[in-house]
Amino acid sequence: MTRDLTPDEKRHSEALYAPVAAALRELIDVTIRSDVDDADVRRAQALIEEAAGLLGSRLDPGPPSSRSGPDGRPLTWGNVAFGVRNAIAFPLQIERAENGRVTTDLNLGAPYEGPAGHLHGGISALILDHVLSATAHRPEAPAFTGTLTLRYVAPTPLGRVRAEAWTDREERGKTFAVGHLLDAAGPVTVRAEGVFIRPRPPQ
Amino acid sequence: MTRDLTPDEKRHSEALYAPVAAALRELIDVTIRSDVDDADVRRAQALIEEAAGLLGSRLDPGPPSSRSGPDGRPLTWGNVAFGVRNAIAFPLQIERAENGRVTTDLNLGAPYEGPAGHLHGGISALILDHVLSATAHRPEAPAFTGTLTLRYVAPTPLGRVRAEAWTDREERGKTFAVGHLLDAAGPVTVRAEGVFIRPRPPQ
Repeated sequence: MTRDLTPDEKRHSEALYAPVAAALRELIDVTIRSDVDDADVRRAQALIEEAAGLLGSRLDPGPPSSRSGPDGRPLTWGNVAFGVRNAIAFPLQIERAENGRVTTDLNLGAPYEGPAGHLHGGISALILDHVLSATAHRPEAPAFTGTLTLRYVAPTPLGRVRAEAWTDREERGKTFAVGHLLDAAGPVTVRAEGVFIRPRPPQ
Repeated sequence: MTRDLTPDEKRHSEALYAPVAAALRELIDVTIRSDVDDADVRRAQALIEEAAGLLGSRLDPGPPSSRSGPDGRPLTWGNVAFGVRNAIAFPLQIERAENGRVTTDLNLGAPYEGPAGHLHGGISALILDHVLSATAHRPEAPAFTGTLTLRYVAPTPLGRVRAEAWTDREERGKTFAVGHLLDAAGPVTVRAEGVFIRPRPPQ
């Protein structure tokens, strides 16, 4: 087990890797949409393998969460929704209004496709799981999803989407949250409700 | 709009891009877990940008689904769950048993993390959406998710997982499917039920 990172080390590493993840997001997208000659595809593959060889030459054995940040909590650099080092992550950024409402705005292209030209229903589920659960999180007590129900009322075109969520009620460590996904044109495309559980701290 | 691909063109392109996507999956993983010196991170970033520049120098304007394959259907190369060109895709491969049961086996590492050391609940949802919907798909009539309900009964550790689904009943173009996610040790970690709808073909 490595020692906890200092605040400076954490900031430095995040500033170093954020542009790498951004470049990698671009690369994922163009790999899907490219129409170049075969020779250029093979040259790109060699560059990708060279980059993986460089970064892979010294690896932490587990995900970043096996190490701790300055606050003693696991590092979330690899989180698939918002991790600063994870090119799969959109990355999702939560906005919190004073009334407790939680929002995120995303622009989702070819890499998140399901039905032709539309967002995969599972990506809508990922976004809504994350945004609904954010209504339940407390800094000292992260919340886990208990149940999640999704109603797909219309297809969500690729492009700009917004997800919104709020708390319906709270009961003894459980948050009942509701929310929805909206496409750029405004109408709701997916409705969600979920129960999120905060485990009791050890006595 | 480009003409449909011939079977040979489709096979050729898939064989060309599958190893690129595989190399990119490895690169996504090591970007999350790397512990190399800053200079090597910056060299890797330059290689990633060079690869993106090459592949991005001639792009289809939309996702591959804006083009058709030999069967006249949209190309699914970019699908986020199984697309051959999509490095985010696991890729998910469906096994169908004679009794109609649908299964997939996956090995999911650092890029799919939510809670420390565990699969993100939204990735479980993506997998289950896809596997449950596969019980409803017909070659001539793809199915769309109507509702999906997920019950998270235990955390799913990163590593080997299996998802299974089967049809509970069918009613006038609707398939009621159920299924679950199992971790490597066997117990069910997530239960799912969903309603999948096949739009009527135009009369």
